[in-house]
Amino acid sequence: MVKILMHGCNGKMGRMITEIVKNEEDAVIAAGVDKFTGIPNDYPVFEKITQCDVGVDVVIDFSNAGAVDELLDYCVKKSLPVVLCTTGLSDEQLKKVDECSEKIAVLKSANMSMGINLLLKLLKDAAKVLAPAGYDIELVEKHHNQKLDAPSGTALALADSINEAMGNEYEYVYDRSQVRKKRDAKEIGISAVRAGTIVGEHEVIFAGTDEVIEFKHTAYSRSVFAKGAVEAGKFLAGQPAGMYDMGDVIQF
Amino acid sequence: MVKILMHGCNGKMGRMITEIVKNEEDAVIAAGVDKFTGIPNDYPVFEKITQCDVGVDVVIDFSNAGAVDELLDYCVKKSLPVVLCTTGLSDEQLKKVDECSEKIAVLKSANMSMGINLLLKLLKDAAKVLAPAGYDIELVEKHHNQKLDAPSGTALALADSINEAMGNEYEYVYDRSQVRKKRDAKEIGISAVRAGTIVGEHEVIFAGTDEVIEFKHTAYSRSVFAKGAVEAGKFLAGQPAGMYDMGDVIQF
Amino acid sequence: MVKILMHGCNGKMGRMITEIVKNEEDAVIAAGVDKFTGIPNDYPVFEKITQCDVGVDVVIDFSNAGAVDELLDYCVKKSLPVVLCTTGLSDEQLKKVDECSEKIAVLKSANMSMGINLLLKLLKDAAKVLAPAGYDIELVEKHHNQKLDAPSGTALALADSINEAMGNEYEYVYDRSQVRKKRDAKEIGISAVRAGTIVGEHEVIFAGTDEVIEFKHTAYSRSVFAKGAVEAGKFLAGQPAGMYDMGDVIQF
Amino acid sequence: MVKILMHGCNGKMGRMITEIVKNEEDAVIAAGVDKFTGIPNDYPVFEKITQCDVGVDVVIDFSNAGAVDELLDYCVKKSLPVVLCTTGLSDEQLKKVDECSEKIAVLKSANMSMGINLLLKLLKDAAKVLAPAGYDIELVEKHHNQKLDAPSGTALALADSINEAMGNEYEYVYDRSQVRKKRDAKEIGISAVRAGTIVGEHEVIFAGTDEVIEFKHTAYSRSVFAKGAVEAGKFLAGQPAGMYDMGDVIQF
Repeated sequence: MVKILMHGCNGKMGRMITEIVKNEEDAVIAAGVDKFTGIPNDYPVFEKITQCDVGVDVVIDFSNAGAVDELLDYCVKKSLPVVLCTTGLSDEQLKKVDECSEKIAVLKSANMSMGINLLLKLLKDAAKVLAPAGYDIELVEKHHNQKLDAPSGTALALADSINEAMGNEYEYVYDRSQVRKKRDAKEIGISAVRAGTIVGEHEVIFAGTDEVIEFKHTAYSRSVFAKGAVEAGKFLAGQPAGMYDMGDVIQF
Repeated sequence: MVKILMHGCNGKMGRMITEIVKNEEDAVIAAGVDKFTGIPNDYPVFEKITQCDVGVDVVIDFSNAGAVDELLDYCVKKSLPVVLCTTGLSDEQLKKVDECSEKIAVLKSANMSMGINLLLKLLKDAAKVLAPAGYDIELVEKHHNQKLDAPSGTALALADSINEAMGNEYEYVYDRSQVRKKRDAKEIGISAVRAGTIVGEHEVIFAGTDEVIEFKHTAYSRSVFAKGAVEAGKFLAGQPAGMYDMGDVIQF
Repeated sequence: MVKILMHGCNGKMGRMITEIVKNEEDAVIAAGVDKFTGIPNDYPVFEKITQCDVGVDVVIDFSNAGAVDELLDYCVKKSLPVVLCTTGLSDEQLKKVDECSEKIAVLKSANMSMGINLLLKLLKDAAKVLAPAGYDIELVEKHHNQKLDAPSGTALALADSINEAMGNEYEYVYDRSQVRKKRDAKEIGISAVRAGTIVGEHEVIFAGTDEVIEFKHTAYSRSVFAKGAVEAGKFLAGQPAGMYDMGDVIQF
Repeated sequence: MVKILMHGCNGKMGRMITEIVKNEEDAVIAAGVDKFTGIPNDYPVFEKITQCDVGVDVVIDFSNAGAVDELLDYCVKKSLPVVLCTTGLSDEQLKKVDECSEKIAVLKSANMSMGINLLLKLLKDAAKVLAPAGYDIELVEKHHNQKLDAPSGTALALADSINEAMGNEYEYVYDRSQVRKKRDAKEIGISAVRAGTIVGEHEVIFAGTDEVIEFKHTAYSRSVFAKGAVEAGKFLAGQPAGMYDMGDVIQF
C-alpha cells in the first residue's frame, strides 16, 4: 500500500486526486497539505508541509510555484520521491529541481495523462511499421471554442513523436484549401476543430490502400491528469534518485 | 415493378447499377443500350437507343455527353422519364435538357448519393434547432491522397446547406494555426484530411455545452451513386414533366 | 429577455442551469427558490416559492417531489408556464399536473437533452427514406461501468422512434453470438458497451451498399439536461395552456 | 529491388497484388503463374510453375490447394522463400509445409492485414499499461449483413491477444441485456454490428476515469490482404529457412 502525501490537497486537482485514490486498491492518501484547511478531509491536513509528521512513501504536488521551494527542501530532507505537477516554475526553481533529482526521485511531465503518454510510445512503433509501407499519416484534434491556440500542444507532441521515430523527415500541413495539388507522402496533415466545450480529443490516422488504422484519445475532464499523477505516485514510490517523466510510468 | 432502360449499361456505372437492381424487389432492367455489346447481359442490349423496341417506364443514363442528344430525343418521343447522370454536357445540351423537361420528367443532381442528399435536408433542420441554442458547427472531410482540391465539393455543399438555412451568416474557416484567438460563433470550420485511398467521409459536428451531435457519411465505393440512380429511377417512373433532383427522391 | 424563476436553484442541476443562463443572451434568472440559502447567488433566493414577489415569465423546476404541489399551485395562481424536471412524482401528483395543464403551459419530458430529442425526430425522417431503400439499421450505445441496465432507456427510445415511423415491423436483436445465420432485414441490432466513466454515447447506423450514414450523440455531463431545460424555458414563456414535451421545443 | 513470382497472378487477389506492386519502389513482379493466361500482363506468365525460368527472390501464392504441392516442390528445389496465402490445405499438405520450412522460409498467417497484425502487437502493450490502472476493455466489430458468424474471428483474435498479455484472466461477454448488474472489471465486452456491405471494422476501447483510448481498424476491401502479402514478400526475401507469420513482418 503506497502512502501518499497530497500537496495542495484542497485545490481542484487535489480534490480530484483524493476522489480517485478512494477507488485505488494499492494506494491511500495518508496526509495532505493546504493553506486552506476549511473543508473536512478523510486524512489529516497541515497548513505547511514542515508541520507534517505523518510517514509517507511519496508526495504528489498540485500546488503553486510559491510553495515549491519549501516542498523540495522537505522531500530532500525526508528522502521522499515527488511527483511535481505544479507549472510556471522560475528558471531558478527548475535548476533547483534538477539539483534535487540527484538526491531524490523527481517526476515531471508536459502532459500527465496516461493515455496520451501511452500513445506517444505506441505511435512510434506504428509509424515504424506503417510509414515505410506507404501509409499516410494525419492528425485531427478537437477542443472547446475558448481555446486560443491551434493546433494543441498535445497534437504537436504526438506529431513530433512520430516524426522523431521517422528521422524528422515529415512536414506539418495545417491548411489544404489554398493549393490545388496531390498530397505529398512526407506530410502530416494536422486539423484543429473548435466547438462547444469539448475537453480534448486527439485522433491519429494511418491510411494505406483500402485500410485505415486510427488511434484516438478522448479526455472527458481534467481528472485524466489526476489519474496520471496517481499512477506516477505509485510508480515513483521506492525509486532511486533521478529525473523521471510519464514515459517511465508507461512500461510494457 | 418498374422497368428500367439502362443507357450505358456496359460502362463501369452501368454494370454497378445492373448488380444493384438484381437485389431490388420492385425494379428490373428490361433493356440496355451500349455501343459495346461484347459482354453477356441478362437483358437485351442495343447498340443505339433508336433500335430499342422494349417497353420501359424510365431511363437511367450513365453514358457520355456525345450520346445525350439522341437519348433526349428518344425520351421525348416515347414520353419517358429520364435520370440523367452523364456529366460534362455543353451549354447547348443543358438548354436542351431544360426544354425537354417541359415535356418529360428529367432528374439531374450534383451528387447522386442517397445519404448525402438526405443529410443535405436533415442538416438544415438540425441547424435551425441547434444554432440558435448556441451550438457550434464544424465539418471534417476525408479523401484519398490523389484528390487535388480541398475541401471537397460535397463538404462545401453540406456547409452551404446549413448556411442557407441560417440566413447565410456563417463564414467558412479552413485554417486556425495562423491566429491566436477564440472561435467566433458564426464560423463553420472545415477541415480536410487526405490519406491513403479513402473514398469519401464527411462528418458534420454540432457541439454545445457538454454535448456533441455528429452526422457522418461514409462512401466505400462509387456504387453509392449507382444506388442513388436506381432510387431516382424508381421515383421518377410515372412522374409528370418537370426538372427534378435527388432532393425530390428524399421524401419523409 | 425571458425572466426565469429557478425552482431548486442551489441543487446540482439548479447551479448548472444558473451557469448556463449566464451565457444566454435572451434569458436571465430573475429569482430562485431553495430551502438551502447558504450560498451567494447573483439573484434573490427565497426559501419558499410563496415568498417570491419577483415578476417572471416562466419557472424551471429541478427540485424534489415534495415541493411540486406548492409549485403547481403557485404557477396556476400566477398564470406561469412551468418546465417540470423533477422526477418520481406520485400518481396523484401526475394527475394534478394534467389538471394544471388546462390552465397553464406545462412541459415534461422523459429526456431533457436537446440533442437526443432532435435525433428522435430526424431518425424518423432518415428511416423513412433509407429503410425502404434497403439500408440496415443498427444502434450502439456506450455508458459507464456502474450502469445496471442494458441497453439504455435512451437507446430503446431511439429504436422505438425509428420502429414507430416504419410501422413497428422491426425486431430488436441484442446478441448475435448464439446463432450462425445472416442478418434479417427487419432487425435493429442494439449493442451496449460498458466501460470507465462514459457519461452516455448513442450511435445510430444506417448501412446500405457501400454507404454508411451515422447519427451520433455524446453527452459529456448531465449539463445537457440543464441546457435542454433552459431552451424549454425560453420556448414555454408565453405559450398557451397545455401539456408540452421536448419535441415541441425542437422546431424546424 | 525484390523480384516476386506471383503464383495465381490472374485470380482476384493476384491481380490486386499486381496493382499494388506497381506503386512499390523496392519490389517488382518478375513473373507470374496462372493456368488462365488469357489476359495481358506486364510480366511473363507461365501456365505451370515448372515452366518458369525467370530468376526471382520470393514467391507470393494466392492460388488454390490443388496447386500447392507443385509450388512447394519448386520452392525447395530453387531455394525460394514463399508467402503462402492459399487456404483450405489438407492435413497432409500442412505437414508438407512444415517439412519444407526446414529447408526454405515459409510465411503463413491467419490474417494477412498489416493493420490487424500491428494492432495484435500494440494492444498487448496498451493492455499491460492500462488494465492494471483500472481501465475497462471493450471491443466493437462491424461487418456486412451476409456474414454468418459473430463475433468475427479477427475480433476474437484481438481479444485473445489482450487476454494472453494479461494472464488469460478475462471473460468475454456478448450480451448485457439479460442481466441487471454492474460490469465486472475482468470482462471484455464484444459487440457485433451487422449492416449493409461493411467490409470489416474493429474498434478496441480502453476506458478509465474520464478518459477513453480507442484503436480502430477499417478495411475497405480485400486488398488489405494483398498489401500485407506484398510486405510479407519483401520481408521474406533473403530470410533463412523457418516458419514465419505476419507478426514477424511487423517489426518496430
